[in-house]
Amino acid sequence: MAQRTTLQEFEAVFPKLEEALLDHAKSYKLPQEQLDWYKKSLNINTLGGKCNRGMSVPDSVSLLLNKKLDEDEYFKAATLGWMTELLQAFFLVSDDIMDSSITRRGKPCWYLHEGVGMVAINDAFMLEAAIYTLLKKYFRSHPAYVELLELFHEVTFQTELGQLCDLLTAPEDKVNLDNFSMEKYRFIVVYKTAYYSFYLPVALALHQLNIGTPKNLKQAEEILIPMGEYFQVQDDYLDNFGLPEHIGKIGTDIMDNKCSWLVNQALAIATPEQRKVLEENYGHKDKTKEAAVKKLYDELQLEQRYKDYEEKVVGEIWEKISALDESDGLKKEVFEAFLAKIYKRSK
Amino acid sequence: MAQRTTLQEFEAVFPKLEEALLDHAKSYKLPQEQLDWYKKSLNINTLGGKCNRGMSVPDSVSLLLNKKLDEDEYFKAATLGWMTELLQAFFLVSDDIMDSSITRRGKPCWYLHEGVGMVAINDAFMLEAAIYTLLKKYFRSHPAYVELLELFHEVTFQTELGQLCDLLTAPEDKVNLDNFSMEKYRFIVVYKTAYYSFYLPVALALHQLNIGTPKNLKQAEEILIPMGEYFQVQDDYLDNFGLPEHIGKIGTDIMDNKCSWLVNQALAIATPEQRKVLEENYGHKDKTKEAAVKKLYDELQLEQRYKDYEEKVVGEIWEKISALDESDGLKKEVFEAFLAKIYKRSK
Repeated sequence: MAQRTTLQEFEAVFPKLEEALLDHAKSYKLPQEQLDWYKKSLNINTLGGKCNRGMSVPDSVSLLLNKKLDEDEYFKAATLGWMTELLQAFFLVSDDIMDSSITRRGKPCWYLHEGVGMVAINDAFMLEAAIYTLLKKYFRSHPAYVELLELFHEVTFQTELGQLCDLLTAPEDKVNLDNFSMEKYRFIVVYKTAYYSFYLPVALALHQLNIGTPKNLKQAEEILIPMGEYFQVQDDYLDNFGLPEHIGKIGTDIMDNKCSWLVNQALAIATPEQRKVLEENYGHKDKTKEAAVKKLYDELQLEQRYKDYEEKVVGEIWEKISALDESDGLKKEVFEAFLAKIYKRSK
Repeated sequence: MAQRTTLQEFEAVFPKLEEALLDHAKSYKLPQEQLDWYKKSLNINTLGGKCNRGMSVPDSVSLLLNKKLDEDEYFKAATLGWMTELLQAFFLVSDDIMDSSITRRGKPCWYLHEGVGMVAINDAFMLEAAIYTLLKKYFRSHPAYVELLELFHEVTFQTELGQLCDLLTAPEDKVNLDNFSMEKYRFIVVYKTAYYSFYLPVALALHQLNIGTPKNLKQAEEILIPMGEYFQVQDDYLDNFGLPEHIGKIGTDIMDNKCSWLVNQALAIATPEQRKVLEENYGHKDKTKEAAVKKLYDELQLEQRYKDYEEKVVGEIWEKISALDESDGLKKEVFEAFLAKIYKRSK
C-alpha cells in the first residue's frame, strides 16, 4: 500500500544533495568565500518552506506503485522533488526583487539580507543551475533523462511567461483596472503557478517510473491545470474571506493591486457605479479605501460566488478523474490525493 | 577552402530564429502585449553587438570541414552561434542590473528603458530559455543533443561562478585591495569570460560535426582557456594603455574598483609605500586619484610587463597549437584563426 512522506523524511534527503552541489562547485576550485556564500544561499532559499510541491513527487510515485518506496526509489523521487523546490527557490528569490517584497516565509527576503542586494540575481541563477547539476549526477543514465531536461526547460519557460503577464498586468505602482480580465487572470494563474506546482511533480513521478507516455502526461495535464487554477482561486478567496488565524497572515491583495480572482469577478458583474467604487479604491495602501472594496465584495456576494465556483470546478475535476484511462499505468489515486489536500481548505 | 562569415550573413539568420521563438510563445496563447514585449527584449538585447562569439561557430565549422558551408550547414552553425549570443544577452542584461551600469553598446541598459525596471530580470530568464527552445526545435534529433544541452548548462554555471567571484571580490562601493589577488583574478577571468567566449563556440562547432570527443574537447579547452585569459588581460591593459580613439571609450577600471590585471600586477610587485598609493587612490570617482594610480602604473613599468606577458603566453599557446593531435578531426587552423584575431590588437 502507498505511504505518504513526511516533511522530516523529505528534508533528510537534502543534505546529501547539498553536498553533491557543493562538491560540484568545489570541482571548479571555487574560492572558499564564494563556496560559503553558495551554501548559505542554497540553505536560506531552498529550505524552510512547507515543501508541498517537492513531497508530491514521492507521494505520487508511491501511489503509482501502490507500495511503500524502497530506499533507492525514495531517494530518486525526493531528489526530483527537491528540484521542484530549487525551481521554486529560483523564482521566489527573483520575484521578491521584481515585486519589491519585504518578507518571505516570515524572514527578510534574500536580496534584503545584509550585503546581498542585487547579487541575489546571480544567486537565483545558481539555484536554477543546481537542478541540472543534480539531474546530470543522478539521472544521466535514466531512460527519460532527455524528457526530464526538456520538462524542466518547458515548465521554467511557462512560469516565466506567467510572470511576464503578471508583471505587465498588475504593476504595483500603476493602477489600471482596464488591464484586468478573467482571460488574463487565467493565463497568469495557469502559467505562473499551475504548471510548476501541480503538473510538474506528477510529470516527474511518471518519468521516474518510465510511464511518462504522451497519453499519461496529457491526462495529468488536463486534470492538474484546472486543479492548480482552483488552488489559486482559493488562495485569492482566502486572502479576503479567510481567517487570519487560519491563513497565518492578513491579506493585502486589494491594497497591492493584485490581479485577483475576486476583483476580476467583481469587474465582470459590477454596475457602472460599482465599477467606479473599484476604480477609486483598488490598489491603494489605505485602510479606508480597502474597506470600501471589501464592502463592495460583500454587496456583490463574492463569497457565495466563490462557493458556487468551487462546487462546479471540483465536480468537473472529479468527473475527469473518474473517466481516467489507467491503461498506461496512471492511477486515479494520484489525483484524488492531490484534490483531497486542497478541497475546502481554510489555510 | 574555408570561408569566414560576415556579420551581414550571420545577422541574416536571426529573423528566422526570432520567428521560431515568437511562434513558440504564441503556442501558449501569450497575450499580444506580452508577445510584443518579448520581441522587443529579444531584439534590443540580442542584436547590435559585434557577434564575435556567435560568428566563431560557423567560422570554426568551416575551418574544420575546410570548405565553404552549404546552406543547411551554415544555418545550423549560425543557429548555435546565436545561442551563444543569447547566453551573452542573458548575462549582460542581468550583469548591468547587478553592476548598476548605465549604458550598453552605446545605448541605455535594458533595465533603464522606460517602463522596464526589474521586469528585466524576467526578460533575462526568457533570453536564457530561448537557447533551449531553439535547441529543441533544431537539434532534437542531432546525435549530440544531450551533449549540447549539458554544454550550455555547464558553461552557464561556470559563468555564474565567475560572476559570483567578481561580485564578492570587487563590489563597486567598497574598496578593499586585500580582496584582490592574481589567483582570484584568474578565476574570475577564466570562468566569467573564457569559457563562454572562447571554449563554447568551438565546442559547439565540434558537436555540430559529431567530433566532440573527450580528446578534442580537452585539447580545445587547454588552448582556448589560456587564450580567453590572454584576451581579458589585453582588455585590462587597453583600458589604461590603449588609445581612446582605438578602443572607442575612455577606460574607467581604476575609478570603478575593477579587479583588473594591472592592479593585481601592481599589488604583486609594489613596495609598502607604493601599495599605500594604491590603497589611497584606487576605486574612487576622482580624476586626481586616478592620475596617481596611472603614474604608479608607469613607475612600475606595467606596459613593459604586459608586453613580456603577451610574448610569453602567446608563445605557450603557439606551442600547444603546434603539438595538437588532429587524429580525431580537430584542426590547428581553428585556433590559429582565433589567435590571429586577437594577437596585438589595439581595440
